Amino acid sequence: MVETLRVGIAGVGTVGASVMRLLARQDAALTARTGRTIRVTGFSAREREKERDADLSGVAFFDNAAALAASPEIDLFVELIGGAEGAARDSVETALNNGKGVVTANKALLARHGLALAALAEEKRVPLAYEASVAGGIPIVKTLREGLAGNSIDRVYGILNGTCNYILSRMETEGLSFEACLKEAQRLGYAEADPTFDIGGFDTAHKLAILATLAFGAEIDADAISVEGIERVTTADLKAADELGYRIKLLGVAQRTPHGVEQRVHPTMVKKSSAIAQVMGVTNAVTIDADAVHELTLVGPGAGGEATASAVVADIADIARGVRSRPLGLPRAALTKVQRVEMQRHEGGYYIRLAVYDKPGAFAGIAGRMAERNISLESIMQRGRPIATGDKPGGPVPVVLITYATTEKLVREALDAIVADGYVAERPQSIRIERE
Amino acid sequence: MVETLRVGIAGVGTVGASVMRLLARQDAALTARTGRTIRVTGFSAREREKERDADLSGVAFFDNAAALAASPEIDLFVELIGGAEGAARDSVETALNNGKGVVTANKALLARHGLALAALAEEKRVPLAYEASVAGGIPIVKTLREGLAGNSIDRVYGILNGTCNYILSRMETEGLSFEACLKEAQRLGYAEADPTFDIGGFDTAHKLAILATLAFGAEIDADAISVEGIERVTTADLKAADELGYRIKLLGVAQRTPHGVEQRVHPTMVKKSSAIAQVMGVTNAVTIDADAVHELTLVGPGAGGEATASAVVADIADIARGVRSRPLGLPRAALTKVQRVEMQRHEGGYYIRLAVYDKPGAFAGIAGRMAERNISLESIMQRGRPIATGDKPGGPVPVVLITYATTEKLVREALDAIVADGYVAERPQSIRIERE
Repeated sequence: MVETLRVGIAGVGTVGASVMRLLARQDAALTARTGRTIRVTGFSAREREKERDADLSGVAFFDNAAALAASPEIDLFVELIGGAEGAARDSVETALNNGKGVVTANKALLARHGLALAALAEEKRVPLAYEASVAGGIPIVKTLREGLAGNSIDRVYGILNGTCNYILSRMETEGLSFEACLKEAQRLGYAEADPTFDIGGFDTAHKLAILATLAFGAEIDADAISVEGIERVTTADLKAADELGYRIKLLGVAQRTPHGVEQRVHPTMVKKSSAIAQVMGVTNAVTIDADAVHELTLVGPGAGGEATASAVVADIADIARGVRSRPLGLPRAALTKVQRVEMQRHEGGYYIRLAVYDKPGAFAGIAGRMAERNISLESIMQRGRPIATGDKPGGPVPVVLITYATTEKLVREALDAIVADGYVAERPQSIRIERE
Repeated sequence: MVETLRVGIAGVGTVGASVMRLLARQDAALTARTGRTIRVTGFSAREREKERDADLSGVAFFDNAAALAASPEIDLFVELIGGAEGAARDSVETALNNGKGVVTANKALLARHGLALAALAEEKRVPLAYEASVAGGIPIVKTLREGLAGNSIDRVYGILNGTCNYILSRMETEGLSFEACLKEAQRLGYAEADPTFDIGGFDTAHKLAILATLAFGAEIDADAISVEGIERVTTADLKAADELGYRIKLLGVAQRTPHGVEQRVHPTMVKKSSAIAQVMGVTNAVTIDADAVHELTLVGPGAGGEATASAVVADIADIARGVRSRPLGLPRAALTKVQRVEMQRHEGGYYIRLAVYDKPGAFAGIAGRMAERNISLESIMQRGRPIATGDKPGGPVPVVLITYATTEKLVREALDAIVADGYVAERPQSIRIERE
């Protein structure tokens, strides 16, 4: 007997239409794999009639997502509306309260309300799946929740925002400015008109919050994440990184430390030879360090209708097969409180770029400020010529320092002292180096 | 109520001991994740008393794997004996026939008897899981079977044998000969005393047979795979590859073509910029080209006790959670017969290295043999100096050709003609180029 799984899709934009096309294209294979027929029986959208690249004939229309979620005509609710509140949240809660499973691609919803939604799903004994919410088509949720069940995870980090990686890749390969690359990304549709959410690191933080919970069994806590965007990265930094054997990537990093789980999003220097450094353009990647598997890296499309739909359909297929994973890996009640770790306590190497006045004693003074705090220098790169060609002697020259492992607190103190000493012409640039 | 899952482990070598340690280390987390307590209640091994890095106190000993498999004291049988026949096959069949689920790391068993075992598991309605059999700690079986359920797959290819990748990486980076690197691999324990199974490509072929079935829904058919090893790759090839922007990797490739599914294992030129080219040393990697997700690459440890145990424990945890995947993705009866594709029909670019006698007309003659068969040359690299320094003029000089896409048949014919013409001093080397 083949029992039909009746699916309702809320939001039929690019991803929603792709989900419908994939379900149709893979219909026979999905039935063979799952033992059930999967049918879209309802959809909701702002407009009923609209040019859509999907066949909606015979699919019931709802002008209200929550009404679709509550409809006795569906067994599974797929939320593709987006946003942490409003129709997305209401409809997902309605579906769960009505004993229906939920598949969502909504990272903001998960990052803000994932704990409550997971608890509700557990209480109602229905699945809540969200593979598409992190890193698009990369099956990272499944990998962390199921594939590495035998591991204790030390660190999970990745390139989780294609817009930022596209901009940094272009800046590096073309030598173009941040502003020029952002404009190009907007023109190509890789960046929004208001790009703050992407380039400021907030999108990465939402995704990291979900990964950190799956990796460390701690409550989702997006506010515990220290977030810096890529706005201050310059072509000078990318060139210096290249000469020193690094690339600069916006990483989200969650890492077990003696003080708790450190969660941070910031531009990061990664060794060119590392797997993550090879990831260019809009591609995403996630690396997991764990005790048994050591290092595992997944590279794939982080966005796009079909790639995101691939993850949504995999979740639907799991539910059709009757898979019952705890939404967050562990039961909601077993998740621990996040011990927030101040960025001041972060330990690691640093890249520091200074515009140093070409005056006697300046360099000795800078080195002294480092030495006072036991910050050791792994390398020093000084060009010897003024920053703006034609400047008279005595003008600022670029100096790049790479430190051995130290703490954020000491680096900030040293840079504050160097600024106060009047050695530098502009605010120092510092970029954390991620160990391999 | 927490119901205990009683596990019997057959074969307590490196992997078996690691599985026991991981189960102990992750005991609380596994119970929280799966809702069940997992206990090893029996083991079998050739010797009862032996120094093992695992706590076997209170675990019942069986001197016979099949007796363990039939024991009413276990619910799940973990086969870590190895080999396609004998105790491994007998005990797995016994377990399935006794209605017990099976977890195995045995690629040879799967490649030879996977179809019959899958059918038996389906008939008995028990799980048969084998994540550890392909690419060690990389969750590639789960990814193909579940994570990409919404995709139609075009190609799956990867570095599936750490020994070969270690040898090729060392040859490239150190400029050492194949023989020297093989010896070093043996000294470090990366290669067996009889290395034929690894370096001849047969180990890769076993794994590829499993991946091809999961990707294309075709019956496992290891005999349909065209297999070449790395024995004939020279440092001259690696140097030429480097200059042309390639690396040489032993790949297993399964690819949908108009003629059927092409399955092949051979040394392959891959673009240096590709994700797979970055994979050095004993690390494994698998790339999947699929319609929705486009390209997905997984990189991780392909061997080693803990990495393999990570995959075994993930399978155990899935079974504890009650996951019921069809062993081969589709039901046994739905798998199609493999349409074998002759290597002669393979289409792609070729790297060709010739030792050409430095005689008037030789090059024109070679180019003519190519042109006769419509083989176009993308690049020609000729050093102009004799192969052995000090050779008198007229001795052979190395010539490297890169062809545009053509067929294996035409390349072989052209090379046969070039040899028959007497233009070359040794058997031509040809290496297929894998498109990105």
